[in-house]
Amino acid sequence: MAKIKPELPSGFRDYLPEDMIPRQKMLDVIRNVFERFGFEPLDTSMVEKFSVLTGNDPDFKMNLFRTGIVKGANQPLAQAFEEMALRFDLTVPLARVVATNLDLPWPFKRYQMGYVFRGEKAQRGRFRGFMQFDADTVGSATMLADTEIIQLMYTTMRALGVKNFVIRFNNRKILNGLAKLAGFDKPEKRKEVFRILDKMEKSSWEELKTELQKKPENKFDATAPNLSDNSIEIIENFLKLTDEKFSSEQVLSILKGMFKNTPIGLEGINELTEIVNNLQGLNIPKENWKNDLSVARGLDYYTGPVFETTLTDLPEIGSVFSGGRYDDLVSRFSDATLPATGASLGVDRLFVALEILKVIKKQKSVCQAIILNLDLKLQADYLQIAQELRSAKIKTQIYMGEDLSFRAQLAYALKMEIPIVLILGENEKKKNIIEVKDTRTREQKPVAREKVTEYIKNLLR
Amino acid sequence: MAKIKPELPSGFRDYLPEDMIPRQKMLDVIRNVFERFGFEPLDTSMVEKFSVLTGNDPDFKMNLFRTGIVKGANQPLAQAFEEMALRFDLTVPLARVVATNLDLPWPFKRYQMGYVFRGEKAQRGRFRGFMQFDADTVGSATMLADTEIIQLMYTTMRALGVKNFVIRFNNRKILNGLAKLAGFDKPEKRKEVFRILDKMEKSSWEELKTELQKKPENKFDATAPNLSDNSIEIIENFLKLTDEKFSSEQVLSILKGMFKNTPIGLEGINELTEIVNNLQGLNIPKENWKNDLSVARGLDYYTGPVFETTLTDLPEIGSVFSGGRYDDLVSRFSDATLPATGASLGVDRLFVALEILKVIKKQKSVCQAIILNLDLKLQADYLQIAQELRSAKIKTQIYMGEDLSFRAQLAYALKMEIPIVLILGENEKKKNIIEVKDTRTREQKPVAREKVTEYIKNLLR
Repeated sequence: MAKIKPELPSGFRDYLPEDMIPRQKMLDVIRNVFERFGFEPLDTSMVEKFSVLTGNDPDFKMNLFRTGIVKGANQPLAQAFEEMALRFDLTVPLARVVATNLDLPWPFKRYQMGYVFRGEKAQRGRFRGFMQFDADTVGSATMLADTEIIQLMYTTMRALGVKNFVIRFNNRKILNGLAKLAGFDKPEKRKEVFRILDKMEKSSWEELKTELQKKPENKFDATAPNLSDNSIEIIENFLKLTDEKFSSEQVLSILKGMFKNTPIGLEGINELTEIVNNLQGLNIPKENWKNDLSVARGLDYYTGPVFETTLTDLPEIGSVFSGGRYDDLVSRFSDATLPATGASLGVDRLFVALEILKVIKKQKSVCQAIILNLDLKLQADYLQIAQELRSAKIKTQIYMGEDLSFRAQLAYALKMEIPIVLILGENEKKKNIIEVKDTRTREQKPVAREKVTEYIKNLLR
Repeated sequence: MAKIKPELPSGFRDYLPEDMIPRQKMLDVIRNVFERFGFEPLDTSMVEKFSVLTGNDPDFKMNLFRTGIVKGANQPLAQAFEEMALRFDLTVPLARVVATNLDLPWPFKRYQMGYVFRGEKAQRGRFRGFMQFDADTVGSATMLADTEIIQLMYTTMRALGVKNFVIRFNNRKILNGLAKLAGFDKPEKRKEVFRILDKMEKSSWEELKTELQKKPENKFDATAPNLSDNSIEIIENFLKLTDEKFSSEQVLSILKGMFKNTPIGLEGINELTEIVNNLQGLNIPKENWKNDLSVARGLDYYTGPVFETTLTDLPEIGSVFSGGRYDDLVSRFSDATLPATGASLGVDRLFVALEILKVIKKQKSVCQAIILNLDLKLQADYLQIAQELRSAKIKTQIYMGEDLSFRAQLAYALKMEIPIVLILGENEKKKNIIEVKDTRTREQKPVAREKVTEYIKNLLR
């Protein structure tokens, strides 16, 4: 029969053990930090109804992985589709879950780890199926919750061994205030301008300016910004309010003046001020966070504070830990008012970055001891020794390859970087000993059969 | 805007924290046991090429979740499909991975946890998206590897707190020998007869007999068994060789006689004998394993030993931990010969069963301490205390709900079953103390501010 090509669709990847071992450690560290912050684990379905994901929004722009059941190999494709798709984030499913569980104790703090799927162009650090690790607080309007998310982002990055990063945050209400002042307050136009401003890090102001001046292509085109010179000047002055030129206090004071007749903008400034004060009280190093008025975040559902995390040594990979407040998302499903805030760590993107930055090291094996399979008559002994070591929590394997030579088996142990090798042949069996080799020190010693577990435990300590 | 119904597609489920906390513990226990057996973690893509999953077999029968990218909300469905589907197990992806990584050190022992998808009818304990936890040894032909899989199954079930279970195993080669003896050796017919025999646990012999006698519907029907009375008698005598009537040794000796001219059958018996001898040497309690000649397993790719695990107290839920040897699967993708064996734990089915059997208890929260939010002026203090407790690895939250009354906040703590409550209002702040309440003992004590972390650590010990 013709061989099938063992390939993956574009934008998807596997993790072999040498990568999966450090990745698993990374996931354990994140889980540990998230639980210390009092978030509870949640798991939701990978497959959702299409309407749940898009909110039946005719302007929904994201490319989803739609899915349906195909019976057998030969059913025509068009019949197979049902109104299902793979989730594109963990936030919309969270909103669905809380809307169907309104009797939960509020606030509801949950974390969730899982794959999400987006039909975007695949590139370095960007996959079509990728893992997110989210923490959210639902049912809380206080800025304490948003402060805590930033604190969680900081603590997680540090726990992962990263020092050089900046959590940049802003407030959508301030941007909405700007939209009012600069005359791009209509929702379609606002979305488009925010999308342009989100490119600040990558583009020059001249390029953005051209985009902001763009005229409508026809009379039905509601999204072309078509901003006047005056509007663009307001935006330009706004974006000049950076940490490089002004202190936080100065920025806030200038903004207050700007927005003195724009209540939504003032509200945003008050929220921002509260968060900044909280962070200062927590002694989070000033180099790891900053207010950045150009941060908008791509997703539509944000309503208040928004956060991003940039790696100082690898900014081009984009934000690795982002989020914001989304007070209206649950209202898609329910009449209940459930303000919410949270952030999402892009596990695979961060993993790629930390491999490039050499914060993460590959590891061949979790195994601590290997029993060589040198004599077929001694297999019962090998099984028993393995059982003993495993009972003592030592990660142990018996060599199970085809080659029964000592040389091949030792080569395997060394290639796998397994620290302890147990050698038991006919001779050792007669003397009731096992030869124990430490591949790290290259020392080898005969050890009495009944003392071998204790001896290895000590070597591994 | 009209509300969207917050529902899931049929056959999918969520895990709220009260279920996810014990499920997470279950996953940690399994991972721990699998690593102790020297299996390494692997993660593979959820989305695979359709051809990889079906092997381009025109008779492929399973209902897959096919998937493709839909651009935006309005693209016609038929255009959206690509040759992709969601994986239906973790074994085929493993075969793909090893076929593309032939330079791995062999044997390759890996474990993998992840969701798989099948378009089957949803029922209790059976989902369309469900989690499997697999362990496999690839590149090893020795029965040591199969023995170890059974030992792993036993150790895992015990580590999960289950005592009443039976690991039933058989060998496909013995069944293939039977097929030769009883004249149903053609692959299509064999598949159908094994499918019928697999129903032994649920159906009467008379029902099976009728199915085995079924005549072809037309001359193209190659799958109808159409077995003669003589063939059926051979099968009946074979299935009478149960542990209830004979000792293991007697069964093996009768089988040897039966297969004296059927080499494939004898090979199966030798493999079975080796596994039985190994298991006896390991002192695994006899009530937890048995050879059962009716075990066939549904999947086509098995070639040698096959395993199932039945819960003695809930047999109707079906096998919760199953597998077998599949020496030819990698050859779908490669010329390399890579014999392999392994087993797969059905996480969600076992979880449902252990909830019914009350082995698993719901748990509301992982949180250990909550700081009440009683005074807006003290928020900086709350944040600092939380930071201190978290640094000491105490899982801590600050109450972030809307209701600032003491009563509402204490009610929340009790509902969430959080053991420690910290009370800090204006009075306590003045006295530089915190009132610490243990909700388990209902004791409450004032504790000096600087001693509070140590005090709580002791309470939680």
